[in-house]
Amino acid sequence: MIVVIKKNQEKKQVDNLINWIKGLGLNVHLSEGENSTVLGLVGDTTKVDIDLIRTLDIVESVTRVQEPYKNANRKFHPSDSIIDVGGHKFGGRHFQIIAGPCSVESEKQVIEIAQAVKKAGATVLRGGAFKPRTSPYSFQGMGVDGLKLLKKAKAETGMPIVSEIMSEEHIDDFDGVDIMQVGARNMQNFDLLKRLGRLKTPILLKRGIAATIEEWLMSAEYIMSEGNPNVILCERGIRTYETYTRNTLDLSAIPILKERTHLPVIVDPSHASGISRLVKPMSLASVGAGADGLIIEVHNDPVHALCDGAQSLRPDQFDDAVQAVRRMLPVVDKELDA
Amino acid sequence: MIVVIKKNQEKKQVDNLINWIKGLGLNVHLSEGENSTVLGLVGDTTKVDIDLIRTLDIVESVTRVQEPYKNANRKFHPSDSIIDVGGHKFGGRHFQIIAGPCSVESEKQVIEIAQAVKKAGATVLRGGAFKPRTSPYSFQGMGVDGLKLLKKAKAETGMPIVSEIMSEEHIDDFDGVDIMQVGARNMQNFDLLKRLGRLKTPILLKRGIAATIEEWLMSAEYIMSEGNPNVILCERGIRTYETYTRNTLDLSAIPILKERTHLPVIVDPSHASGISRLVKPMSLASVGAGADGLIIEVHNDPVHALCDGAQSLRPDQFDDAVQAVRRMLPVVDKELDA
Amino acid sequence: MIVVIKKNQEKKQVDNLINWIKGLGLNVHLSEGENSTVLGLVGDTTKVDIDLIRTLDIVESVTRVQEPYKNANRKFHPSDSIIDVGGHKFGGRHFQIIAGPCSVESEKQVIEIAQAVKKAGATVLRGGAFKPRTSPYSFQGMGVDGLKLLKKAKAETGMPIVSEIMSEEHIDDFDGVDIMQVGARNMQNFDLLKRLGRLKTPILLKRGIAATIEEWLMSAEYIMSEGNPNVILCERGIRTYETYTRNTLDLSAIPILKERTHLPVIVDPSHASGISRLVKPMSLASVGAGADGLIIEVHNDPVHALCDGAQSLRPDQFDDAVQAVRRMLPVVDKELDA
Amino acid sequence: MIVVIKKNQEKKQVDNLINWIKGLGLNVHLSEGENSTVLGLVGDTTKVDIDLIRTLDIVESVTRVQEPYKNANRKFHPSDSIIDVGGHKFGGRHFQIIAGPCSVESEKQVIEIAQAVKKAGATVLRGGAFKPRTSPYSFQGMGVDGLKLLKKAKAETGMPIVSEIMSEEHIDDFDGVDIMQVGARNMQNFDLLKRLGRLKTPILLKRGIAATIEEWLMSAEYIMSEGNPNVILCERGIRTYETYTRNTLDLSAIPILKERTHLPVIVDPSHASGISRLVKPMSLASVGAGADGLIIEVHNDPVHALCDGAQSLRPDQFDDAVQAVRRMLPVVDKELDA
Repeated sequence: MIVVIKKNQEKKQVDNLINWIKGLGLNVHLSEGENSTVLGLVGDTTKVDIDLIRTLDIVESVTRVQEPYKNANRKFHPSDSIIDVGGHKFGGRHFQIIAGPCSVESEKQVIEIAQAVKKAGATVLRGGAFKPRTSPYSFQGMGVDGLKLLKKAKAETGMPIVSEIMSEEHIDDFDGVDIMQVGARNMQNFDLLKRLGRLKTPILLKRGIAATIEEWLMSAEYIMSEGNPNVILCERGIRTYETYTRNTLDLSAIPILKERTHLPVIVDPSHASGISRLVKPMSLASVGAGADGLIIEVHNDPVHALCDGAQSLRPDQFDDAVQAVRRMLPVVDKELDA
Repeated sequence: MIVVIKKNQEKKQVDNLINWIKGLGLNVHLSEGENSTVLGLVGDTTKVDIDLIRTLDIVESVTRVQEPYKNANRKFHPSDSIIDVGGHKFGGRHFQIIAGPCSVESEKQVIEIAQAVKKAGATVLRGGAFKPRTSPYSFQGMGVDGLKLLKKAKAETGMPIVSEIMSEEHIDDFDGVDIMQVGARNMQNFDLLKRLGRLKTPILLKRGIAATIEEWLMSAEYIMSEGNPNVILCERGIRTYETYTRNTLDLSAIPILKERTHLPVIVDPSHASGISRLVKPMSLASVGAGADGLIIEVHNDPVHALCDGAQSLRPDQFDDAVQAVRRMLPVVDKELDA
Repeated sequence: MIVVIKKNQEKKQVDNLINWIKGLGLNVHLSEGENSTVLGLVGDTTKVDIDLIRTLDIVESVTRVQEPYKNANRKFHPSDSIIDVGGHKFGGRHFQIIAGPCSVESEKQVIEIAQAVKKAGATVLRGGAFKPRTSPYSFQGMGVDGLKLLKKAKAETGMPIVSEIMSEEHIDDFDGVDIMQVGARNMQNFDLLKRLGRLKTPILLKRGIAATIEEWLMSAEYIMSEGNPNVILCERGIRTYETYTRNTLDLSAIPILKERTHLPVIVDPSHASGISRLVKPMSLASVGAGADGLIIEVHNDPVHALCDGAQSLRPDQFDDAVQAVRRMLPVVDKELDA
Repeated sequence: MIVVIKKNQEKKQVDNLINWIKGLGLNVHLSEGENSTVLGLVGDTTKVDIDLIRTLDIVESVTRVQEPYKNANRKFHPSDSIIDVGGHKFGGRHFQIIAGPCSVESEKQVIEIAQAVKKAGATVLRGGAFKPRTSPYSFQGMGVDGLKLLKKAKAETGMPIVSEIMSEEHIDDFDGVDIMQVGARNMQNFDLLKRLGRLKTPILLKRGIAATIEEWLMSAEYIMSEGNPNVILCERGIRTYETYTRNTLDLSAIPILKERTHLPVIVDPSHASGISRLVKPMSLASVGAGADGLIIEVHNDPVHALCDGAQSLRPDQFDDAVQAVRRMLPVVDKELDA
């Protein structure tokens, strides 16, 4: 970490700062120039509160040289992490497609969709049981009953399952769920992250709606530093001023994450735009950007069926998108699970 | 709610949509024009899932005429809500200043600061015990012990106290805390909001880092719809592209909230900018915009004292800011508690 | 256009508004409901000032049913526009790669790069002569002399050329330039757009740094409504809070534009990120999203050569990226010019 | 400027960089640590292209110690600039209110409004003649005829006048206009800025819709470096994700600018929100934040008069707002011109 001190500061204040930093167990290299004094902090700077130093009146600027994350950092773990989910691998040359209904609604619905998406090439089944909704008056999901139906579909089809967890209090109910998803709104629910860090279940960590890449990796670090190394990152769009799409899918984040971290990264093209017609092109774009997988909503419920639309794909549209993804994978040297 | 149907849609699909809406217990007024068909939905539309309708392929656009929040809505509660905190009133012509340390660090620290801010004009004491930190390696607060020290300061000074709650699991520890704060990162932690809605303790609901005003009011609605009417909103800056300040304080939100809701609205000028020199001018700006109070960080801890800076104010700087606020209040027809 | 009137407004004020709208040559369909009065405006509403109506006190909301752009609108021109640039076609199943140096620096430099990119598969040569720089103290480009060198490279290689124009006063100097580029900062320099609209030269219109898709199409409309139908849109990243990349490439804009407009859309993956390592993956992602071409910076100048980096690609890196693009094009049913 | 080199780089590449920097006339202080090599650049670094260095592969990070602006920098001009406009002073303890119609529409209109706003306390008359409009089909202003009417109002009332210039080609028409306004969309129209820099007329430089504070000051620097020191900055709201207001007024920018630059800073509370009810509270907030003045739209045209609304104030509302501003000025130690 490089701390630049403003010009003409009292020596006593600078010394106080240096002593305080040394008190944290770090060495300080002092370099005094004509225009500025520069402190180089040497040692494990992940424990230094950069915001605190930045706001001191004698400080001009602070620059991290070392990233503030360790477990998630590719520097300390150069090869890709491969995370196994019921025999399906995330990371490396593997490519996985997770698919299923937005919300679990009935046994028939979830099993029918599961069979359809499996046939098209999906390897993991998704389904919402606890639904985070902006309004308290919107449908909040079937809860524990939804999880039970999802587990029935797992038993029926052999597909591993993923569902969103919204509170530490539901952890026991997720026994048998293969991937626990942390939604965008809970990406910085630190108590939940720490609790999930004490499990071994793979965690699908969605990017917060206005999270920086670094904040996102720090949330992964919360889980990993508690002992759970199985984190799969999921880009799902960030909030911008543009209103044609619900969120702006940030695909540049994929190659950047691939440099910074060894964790697998997948993309949710359904939620980002909120427009089903965009799912196919944005799936192909995700493959191009280097993603390790996709998570796609597929429906067969009456309203959608009647009116033909929404962010979810019909099974036939899903099949079409998967076929295009298959054709593209060799170009980026990836392979879809058999 | 006004639903505009695209041109040249099949009558059957439009009829399906109308029947589905009627199934939700609403009436539909149909108006067919040359270029478009318009459906007017009449009844309690708070329960309609606007996102679902918006994504249907036959729908051109959906416009809410009625806001999706009821309990927080000024239309149904025209006069200002006045929320009493230990004899100090938030809302109406009242103006309150909450002050105290960012983190509770010791009995001596919190009591000394409490006495200093009380003397300067603060009426409520703040102090962080559970600290939401981006990094798992940063100080996470003193936790339950911090709350105990805060309660000692309350006993010593008679000031009501406010502290942040981060998990449902800590609710019992907050017994004796006069205001429970929900931080920006938990503004859409819906399980926590629902749980707090079953209390009567006033809730200080900070705006999420990228929350729209409507999403913020919907989070208040989560608390209120469970039975707790005592919500105080707190603007603390939103995330933008500007980097000189940590966040951009959105003061236009104050007069807009004053139109939309009857709830009191206060401003946190310390966190928004992260720069102590901005606290005084932004406090005055908040008064000008019509805020019902301020929450300000005041420190006396060694590092700050040594180096003189950071987002917190020293007690003398706090005193200076409060005096300026006092002079400004008559212009906006408000009064600081004696 | 649908105008929703607030509840309980005076009839006289509503009538005034209706008469004013009729005065613009439009018909008004009035639909009075229990909760709201809805006006449907019928006719050519592109001339209605939506912002003016939206801000009237009696108006609850205004929704456009018809887009505010006509010439750029796919509804009135269903098939793709094909724009010919020196025999190379933009739009439809065609795919073009524009490449060249950020700034023209010398005859040798521009000709060498031109030959290298042509060999790799580029069909159009780019080169900055007038450079928009944030600082008045940064290099402002070679100006007219730069254009001359670019024309020499055109004569030498047979490649059509593209360069940025920053002021109406330079229009004559661009004689012989095959595509005139309008940069992000000038996307709403309306005097410049109108002037370019009176030419027939193809215009490469970059998206403004915080422009909505609709504002961007309205800027295309400025050019087209003056008589120049040859507009090529270029996505180059939008400003967000994320700081790892200079801008956030908005690839969802591609399929949305493909629905809304018949104009060709290309992507600039070099400027968006400002990181050369991202150029290849984001080029592939652009192909996946459905872009009609790419514009890529390629360098061979000493500083870059020595230090090996920057947003520009070296010729061998460019060649590698083009080869990957070639392999991907059949999946999206596009073809690179021979 | 501090350049941090990545670990384990080849000495030859680092030497190449150092030699290149020295070639720019700067000295380089080299500091080699265990984990990183730090270069301190000494001399006039305003001419260094920070983006170029940042993108080199061997560079970890670059931090400016010195701001990239000189003429606008308070470090080199510690006391407030006072800019005289027809005897009315901007800057220091002075406070000015600019008011007038959005667009000049007729002689009667502009003179009536001028007289009304002058009576209420405005000292400078604003009026749009060239109007930057998103749509080519919206009213583009009266142009040169509008300027003539504005000059008539100046002759009639003695008020200095301000109007927006959109192109270098209109400069002669602005003879007799006391302040030339550069709108948000042209803040980085560098050719226009340079041309205005060769005049002595005060320039009202609005902040670009997504401009950082630093970019804004660099645009002021464009004008000042050409010889015109008379720049007045105008905050008018920035683009964010919030949709209740058209733009988000960034009042924290005021105290930050007051530290960074000696130039006067005023606020436009009308355009930022687009809602007339917000003009008064946001005017008071601007005073609290430390602004040197306001620019407010006041109307008396038929549509507005009939329907009562829009972002403009009626003369009586303007009078009410000015009276509140007057009462607040002593708190911030400012004075409204007699």
